[in-house]
Amino acid sequence: MARQERAMRTRLAILRAAAEVFDEVGYEAAAISEILKRSGMTKGALYFHFASKKELAQQILTEQVDAVPPVMPQELVLQEGVDEALLLAFMLHQGDPVVRGSVRLTVDEGAPQDGLDRRVPLSGWVDHNAELLGRAKRAGELLPDVEVVDAARMFIGGFIGTQLMSKHLTGYEDLMDRAADITKHLITSIAVPSVLVRLDFAAKRGARVYEEAMKLRHDAE
Amino acid sequence: MARQERAMRTRLAILRAAAEVFDEVGYEAAAISEILKRSGMTKGALYFHFASKKELAQQILTEQVDAVPPVMPQELVLQEGVDEALLLAFMLHQGDPVVRGSVRLTVDEGAPQDGLDRRVPLSGWVDHNAELLGRAKRAGELLPDVEVVDAARMFIGGFIGTQLMSKHLTGYEDLMDRAADITKHLITSIAVPSVLVRLDFAAKRGARVYEEAMKLRHDAE
Repeated sequence: MARQERAMRTRLAILRAAAEVFDEVGYEAAAISEILKRSGMTKGALYFHFASKKELAQQILTEQVDAVPPVMPQELVLQEGVDEALLLAFMLHQGDPVVRGSVRLTVDEGAPQDGLDRRVPLSGWVDHNAELLGRAKRAGELLPDVEVVDAARMFIGGFIGTQLMSKHLTGYEDLMDRAADITKHLITSIAVPSVLVRLDFAAKRGARVYEEAMKLRHDAE
Repeated sequence: MARQERAMRTRLAILRAAAEVFDEVGYEAAAISEILKRSGMTKGALYFHFASKKELAQQILTEQVDAVPPVMPQELVLQEGVDEALLLAFMLHQGDPVVRGSVRLTVDEGAPQDGLDRRVPLSGWVDHNAELLGRAKRAGELLPDVEVVDAARMFIGGFIGTQLMSKHLTGYEDLMDRAADITKHLITSIAVPSVLVRLDFAAKRGARVYEEAMKLRHDAE
């Protein structure tokens, strides 16, 4: 294995272990020693890649949007939007450590002096969704008065709160149903009727979307 | 002032100061000494009313729903629902310390061993909204297939995430617009059209709803 590839694997193993620990105990209580233990890496390796716990956490926040693989292209752009919501819900529900840890870092407000910039993933998601909704608009899938950036903010806010409620009340047990529900209701008020009736919002779609997305990512690598 | 009334005022002053401190630094970092300083009360008075910081925080969580005063009755039940969302948004936006502190306690996940039960306010809001949506259903304001408990969960999830996004991205600056927006879009997909066109979702309605609610509460006392 080339030196560069080995370095990349080390970095990924550390990020993954850190996300796991952040998911379990939050940023404040997370210990570097625990992250080392889980990753099986040395202190030297960790500090070669990351200057501090803060830099590690910020990197996880920065990579949040990319931690969710692209979904299979669909005939309707809005179906891709639905699929992305179902995919993220599925990864949280299944316990993907990177996604869970990253979402917890975003939602926990933390001390003002912890220096983490939680706006990075939030703005990243808004940009990502505004791009998708922009494509939907150009494809004639949205009602004419829809403002794509406002709509993107609405979808992200709705999703974050829905996953938070589901986590606290059911340990993510009902997340697939709740995420499908709010996505369907929000899209109902922005899609043109002829598009709306062709969309599949079924919660059980999540597992298939996940499998296809993982295959797509695997093939690309 | 009767002894009982004095005790009630002391209790309220402590709860208010505690909520302020929880809002600023979170549960973990909040110090009893700071709560005493802000409230101007003695340690003895605090421990007479609350056994610990945990009990204080849990009490704030328990009283969260009641910290938001009832809105003025409206001809349409759904208008009352809209007004409640605008009122809560307004109180967060204006910086009401009890509401802000309580919401932060709910959203921050905290350490599993902190022992706070964050399901209490979340379930409280779901029950409260399910009751309101049940009244709307009996009044014929909802589409026939709407399941009120699922819809209540959706509204609460949507609101929580919206306020979280607004707090992180704009310091609650855009909360009135964002809260009005998601409320309007969610109600669009559950209300019968003849009711929908009569609802007022304007963000600027929030200030008036707040004034009326405060007057109503004041008159009741």
